[in-house]
This record gives sequence, C-alpha cells and structure tokens, in this order.
Amino acid sequence: MIDFVAKYWETLPDRQALSDCKPGFIWDLVPKEPPKSPESWDKIFADIEKVVLENNTHWHHPHFFAYFATACSYPSIMGDILSGGIASIGFSWKSSPSMTELEMACVDWVAQSIGLPNLFLNSDEGPGGGMIQSTASDATYVAILSARARAVAEVLKTKPTEYAVDEEDPIITFENHDASVIAKLVAYCSDQVHSSVDKGIMLAGVKMRKLKSVVGGPLNNYFVEPARLEAAIKEDRSRGFIPFIYVATVGTTNTCGVEMLRPIGEICNRENMWLHVDSAYAGSFALCPEYRYLIDGVELADSFNFNPHKAMQINFDCSPMWFKDIKEATCYFNVDAEYLKHEHQAVAADYRHLQIALGRRFRSLKIWFVFRALGIEYIQGTLRERVKLGDEFAELIEKDDDFELFVPAHVGLVCFRHKSDNETNDKLVAVINNDHRIHIVPGKVHGTLFLRLAICSLSTTSKDIHYAYKVIKECLSKVLQAKNNVV
Amino acid sequence: MIDFVAKYWETLPDRQALSDCKPGFIWDLVPKEPPKSPESWDKIFADIEKVVLENNTHWHHPHFFAYFATACSYPSIMGDILSGGIASIGFSWKSSPSMTELEMACVDWVAQSIGLPNLFLNSDEGPGGGMIQSTASDATYVAILSARARAVAEVLKTKPTEYAVDEEDPIITFENHDASVIAKLVAYCSDQVHSSVDKGIMLAGVKMRKLKSVVGGPLNNYFVEPARLEAAIKEDRSRGFIPFIYVATVGTTNTCGVEMLRPIGEICNRENMWLHVDSAYAGSFALCPEYRYLIDGVELADSFNFNPHKAMQINFDCSPMWFKDIKEATCYFNVDAEYLKHEHQAVAADYRHLQIALGRRFRSLKIWFVFRALGIEYIQGTLRERVKLGDEFAELIEKDDDFELFVPAHVGLVCFRHKSDNETNDKLVAVINNDHRIHIVPGKVHGTLFLRLAICSLSTTSKDIHYAYKVIKECLSKVLQAKNNVV
Repeated sequence: MIDFVAKYWETLPDRQALSDCKPGFIWDLVPKEPPKSPESWDKIFADIEKVVLENNTHWHHPHFFAYFATACSYPSIMGDILSGGIASIGFSWKSSPSMTELEMACVDWVAQSIGLPNLFLNSDEGPGGGMIQSTASDATYVAILSARARAVAEVLKTKPTEYAVDEEDPIITFENHDASVIAKLVAYCSDQVHSSVDKGIMLAGVKMRKLKSVVGGPLNNYFVEPARLEAAIKEDRSRGFIPFIYVATVGTTNTCGVEMLRPIGEICNRENMWLHVDSAYAGSFALCPEYRYLIDGVELADSFNFNPHKAMQINFDCSPMWFKDIKEATCYFNVDAEYLKHEHQAVAADYRHLQIALGRRFRSLKIWFVFRALGIEYIQGTLRERVKLGDEFAELIEKDDDFELFVPAHVGLVCFRHKSDNETNDKLVAVINNDHRIHIVPGKVHGTLFLRLAICSLSTTSKDIHYAYKVIKECLSKVLQAKNNVV
Repeated sequence: MIDFVAKYWETLPDRQALSDCKPGFIWDLVPKEPPKSPESWDKIFADIEKVVLENNTHWHHPHFFAYFATACSYPSIMGDILSGGIASIGFSWKSSPSMTELEMACVDWVAQSIGLPNLFLNSDEGPGGGMIQSTASDATYVAILSARARAVAEVLKTKPTEYAVDEEDPIITFENHDASVIAKLVAYCSDQVHSSVDKGIMLAGVKMRKLKSVVGGPLNNYFVEPARLEAAIKEDRSRGFIPFIYVATVGTTNTCGVEMLRPIGEICNRENMWLHVDSAYAGSFALCPEYRYLIDGVELADSFNFNPHKAMQINFDCSPMWFKDIKEATCYFNVDAEYLKHEHQAVAADYRHLQIALGRRFRSLKIWFVFRALGIEYIQGTLRERVKLGDEFAELIEKDDDFELFVPAHVGLVCFRHKSDNETNDKLVAVINNDHRIHIVPGKVHGTLFLRLAICSLSTTSKDIHYAYKVIKECLSKVLQAKNNVV
C-alpha cells in the first residue's frame, strides 16, 4: 500500500485535478451485496484505481488551487500507521497515558514554534493548556459552548455541572446549559467568518450578530472595526441581551483578512466576553517570525486554534486548540460515568471533556514525527515558498489588463477578478471548472464575486502558476467570445 | 513502520496490559524545545518504545478486559494508509466524489450485513440513508440536534434554516434552533445510557429525564418498561413540556442490556418523538443472524448507529449512522457558504451537513478493505468467538462460591461480583488494577457495584480467560486477607 501511495504521488501530475464523474457513479462500480468470502488483494488493488482514484478530486495535484491547502507528508503518514497499529483509545489519561501526555508535549512544541505566549503551555505553571481537536469547526464549537456555559453560570451563579439526584425518573435541567438563559445570549463575529462559525453559533442555540467588515488596515483587507463591536455590545445590552463571545478570524476563507486581536481582545476582556481566535489556515505561517503579526494580541484570547493539517505538513486531522484556562472549560463538559473514573483524574488531563466524542486517536504522533523528521526550518521553507508562489501569481494578475486583484495577495491566497461584472466572473468560474485542468473556487464579499487562487499542493511550482494563468486566460477568451456572440 | 507495528503485535503478550507510569512522565522524556533541524528515523524509532509503548495501556493485549473492544486489523490499517496517502478532504461531494460515493456504498454493505431494513439504504428509492460519523457520541449528538430542530420547527412552523438578510449587522435568531423553545423540550432515556447521551442532551440545552430501568425480560438484564416512558410523556405534557426524543440503547455499557425497540418505537411514532438507537457495541453482533433480536423493531427508529470500530475489525474512527430521512436531518444543519457550493449539490450528498466538523477523512476505505479482504463469514466467526469466551468466563464465575453473576453474560460482556458488599468489590477492583496484570473496570447499577470483564482483544484465548480468573482469585485473597487482618 505504501508503494501504491508512492506511485500515486509520482504519477499525480499526469492526472486531472478534477474528475469527470457524475453523482451516482458508484452504483455501477461496487456490487450491491457485501462479500461473504475473502477476495484477493490483487483484485482489491485493481479496484482502487477504478473506483477511488479515477473519481476523486486530487487535492495534491499541482493544479489544485481551490479552498485552502490540506497537508500530507511521509512522516505524518508514519504517525497514522503507528496510531492505527497500536489502536489505543485515549478518552481518559488512564486509557492511554502516552496518548494524553505526548499530546500535551506536542501541542506545547507547536505553541512555542508559532510564538504563542507561555500562558497557553501545558508545561507552564498556570491554568492554560492545549489539546488536539479534529478540525477547526470542532474547536470553534467547543469555544462557543464553553463561553455559553460560562455566561449562563454567571447569570445563574451555579456551581460546576452536578446532576446526581436520588429520586426516581427526575427531570434534570443542566444549569450551566439552561436554554432559558441561552435564549438571551448573543455571539459576535465578522461577516467574513467561515461557515463553521455560523454553524457552531446556530447549533449552540444562541443569537448571532455578524458585524460588517471594512476593507483597509496594513493588509488592505477585510476586518471588523473595534468601534463597531463596541457599539453593538452597548446596543444589545440595552435591549436586554447578553453579549458572551466574539469569534475573531485570523486569515478569513474569502480573502485571508486578519482581525485586530489587540483592540478586539481589550473590548472582550473589559466586557467579560470570551474571545476565540480561529486561525485555521493562516496560523501555520506564524511559524515564520516575519508573520508573527498575525497573532499579535493573542494573549488576550480565551482560546486559540489553527490547523497544522492545512499548511504545516501534518495530515488531517490535527487541529490544536489552546485555552487560557483549560480546567474551566473542562468543567462545563464533564459528565462522569463509573466506568470512566480512574485514580489519577484529579491531576491528569482527560481530554474527552473538551470534545463531543468520547474516543480519540493518537493524533500527536503526527506532530511528533513531522517536527522531528522534517525540522522546523524545513517547514518554514515550505511556508515561504507558498507565499512566494502566491505573490508570483498576483504579479501576473497585476500586469494583466483584463484582471485586477480584489485585495492584495496574502500568505499564499490570491483574490482577483475580471475588471467587469459579477456575471462575467461567475461565467469564468464555471468555464474554468468545467474545463477541469485546474480547480479554483469563487468567493463573494459584500456582493462582489471574485476568484480565489490558493497555493495548495507542495508540488506546485512557478511553472504551474504560469500554467494556471494560461488556462484562466483561455477560459476568459471563451467567456468573452460567448458574450460577444450573444451581442 | 509496518514492520515495527508487526513486531509490536508479536511481542504484545510479553508486555503488561497496564503501564506503571505516573501523570507527568512525559516532561522527562520529550525535550521542551521543538527541533529546528531534522533528526534521523533511527533516533525517532528508538524513542517510540521508550515514550509511546512503555507508557501505554495496551488495548489489544490478551489480558485487557476493560471498557469494550476496540478494533484493529491489517486491511483496516491499509485503508487508513490510503486515506492518508491520497489526503483528500470530503466536505462536499465535489471536494472528493469517490470519498462521498464509496461511503454511500459501504454503509449500505454494512446495513445489509446486519439486517437493517431497506428503508435505511442509500441505494433505496426512499428518503433514508446512511453515512459515517467519527464516534457513537457524535451520532447521538447529531440525532439529538436533529430531533431538537424538528421539534422546534413544529412549534414555530418555520421553513428550512434561512438567515440571509440585507440589513447591516443584524441580530439573527436561527429559528429551528431557538432557545426559547428549546427550553421546553425534554429528552428521555434509560438510567443505563452511556455518558455520551448525558453529554449530548446537556450540550443541546434541553432537559433530560432518565427513566429507571428494571431487570428482567428474555435476557434477564436492564431495560426501561415502555409503560414507564408512556407515563412520563403524559406527565410532562401536562406540565407544559415538549417530549421530543427517546435515546434507546441496544447493549448498555454497564451490563449490555437491550431496550425493547418495538414497543418503545411505537410510543415514539405515536407521540411524534424522534427515536435514536445507540447500539455502539452490540450492533456488530447483528452480523450473525442468531443475534438479530438485538435490532428487532429498528424500522421504527428515526436514526440508528453502531460502531464497527468496536467488535467488527474496522479501526477507530468508523461509526456509521443511518437516518429514516437523511435529507430532513441535513436541512437542520445547512449553512452554506459561497466557496462550498457546487453544481451537483441538489442531487449529491454533502455529508458535512450531518456533522459538526467541515472536513472528513476517507473512512469508507476501511470498511471496503475489511469486508473484502476478510469476508463477512470470517468476521462472524470472530464475533462468535467473543461470545464463546465470555460464556466460558461466566461459567467459571457461576461455579465459584465466592462470586456471582450480576446479570447473565451477553455477547462477550460478563458482569460479576463478590457475594458480599460494595466495599469489598471496590477494593477488589483497586487491587486488580494496581496489580497491572489484567485490566478491567467496574460498573454500578442502582447502587450496586460489580466488575465487568469484556472480551476485547482478538488474541485473547481460553487460556487467557483462565489466567484472568486466576489473577482475580489471587487479588480477592489479598482483599479478604486484609479484611481479616483488620478484624
């Protein structure tokens, strides 16, 4: 299988980034009945090409420029093999001590390497600490639920979750999660947040107030003016609502915009609101000192998260999350059962309390192997290369009379559009994606549609950037020709 | 790494199931500073033994009898290698068509192999369908949130989630998740449910009513009498509450008790309540026709879930979940962003809507490989072996004058206790786990403490069962001796 994967990578440039398959193709390829008797691996391997590879979107193809990067590296796969091979489940310290403790050490490594303040380290004296979530969506949701519980607890002056009762068939209201108080809570964020923030706020049952972003600042990109947040909080308090969290984004999906953590954080701290920082994509770049401006002011946050599984060579799923007070968050999720108790639970970390799932994989092995086998300096090099390639594409766009940058290129994301209307740009996206030679996705901010080209694959080179530019120009010709024909 | 894992398995019996390590051991073993430059694999491999293996709880050790089984198999690891090697992210059909579609086909295979009615199949005409969650906790939580949204929608007569608004900085109440209605909802379950049900209900912000189970029925085990549920619903409606879900357990963690799905389902259907069936552990056994009684009446459920990653040879994380109406559930979670839209979304499945996370791994490869490389008949054989070994241990207990079965052994779980008081049994558990030769965990039902011996490892044989019995007897002697010394 390792050889098969190696061959896949060698032949990847010969494939198409996007497949030509249509929904429902599987029913012609896989028998309806499951196999009673074993089949040979030769037969199985033959099907992998036909079923899996031919009908996939190849995220590591040099011409894949959609969404954001997702990581893949040899040492990371080694980590997953070991995780699967040991096959321990780490819901409590006792159920897998090395899984819990190596996670503590590895998220400390990651924190230090991106310059997070010591107060977020597990090895630090204070109440701060980190662990690994599966995805940034999970981290955002856990932050919202923790903040929600803290806010409810403050209103109701409750004690930690406690619901053991002696009477039979009791109706239990979990005080820290009381919906009658939840109904008054308002979560704030920029109108540029990722869909997972909308989803997390929605599923938490709280109100959402999305603040309109403006373009400007040192990056000439989209961010929320702190005064706008301050005014909204004031207005909502006067309406009887309770502001309880601000979810700040460092590196938005649309345009890689960055929020001003320091003034936003000062407001949150003053207003007794949780500040969660979602830096899913851009966070990795803080590994390079020259991009530390991304997380300036992060010490004011209650929780911070980013995805090394995007730009930092560590395979999905690896989304470390740090808390200013990890024990506080834990107490809002804790529902302990007899079979999960153990003698060390007062002193050891039980990470099940900080996630929805009980079980967990040995995710830290991926960090441990990648950091050791590659070294930080090498990873810094790949990050700088992403930025360079993005800037190179941006230069082609700037020199082109047909196109304009929508915002300046930022850490490997280039947002651009044809200098005309949404309709033309919409058609251009459609023609590019039907063409299937490269894959990009559009973005939309305040009604304006644009194209996003993200440097995703580590095998993307300057040549591929020029190829993408050529394909886009060809597709544009088709769009403009069709337009002229109609006229 | 494959060789390393193979050697781990060969030498596993020479290790101890439980490690002697203490919380905080990692700080002596892993440098505080992350590595700037690459290290050699020789150095890394040398540390795996010292850091990971020596300090782990070995779930596949033949003397590990705690919690429930977790799966590990060669073809499953091959699936994970391929998933990691391709490294696609499948949040929408378009982002990885083969990931989405092979998942559709593989959960159909699993459904058919355990005898789920056709209405749950993706390939069936109707609105039913399945997908793979990470864990049973996730499935339970998604079921609770779906049921919650359905109940709120019925009260408020809302349309599908819709929140696009034109005004600036609007306050948005997600109608289907309106906390002022959520505050009136009551979720029901047995007092024997897994902690993940408590947690899911708590985080959903609804009230919980745990119904007292009774011992009896064909299995002489714990279940909730349907009349008790009916009475509770009536009482709560008269109080102005809205009953909205019953979470039924097929194979409880404490004693592997099974709820009566048919009469419970009839009540839920009549009362317009969602029925979710959590069969995390026991569900796998329905692969054998003689255990199909476990899911009798499942056609009355709105959602059903079990973990092939427990007893069915497929590595964690693989927790398929089926819905009677998968599109209905989807619409309660959908918050669509521009960059996630694609031309096939009206007809193709986008599984991100049925989970908290956006990203997903290629989990179906594990099912595909395990079912094909091993075949169903082989897996049935391993399940029957688990039952046989459990029954063999139960026989030893039954013949022993010191011990008694707490309930009859059921599909590989044996619940037993010393014929005395909780204190003695509690001490016995402590002595066994400090001894470190075998690992078991206790359970508690209605105040009575007992020991749980679960057949976990596939390398456990009759010899290991007798060894466990011997160790337990030795530990009991110590406990009784200490007791006599005190007297």
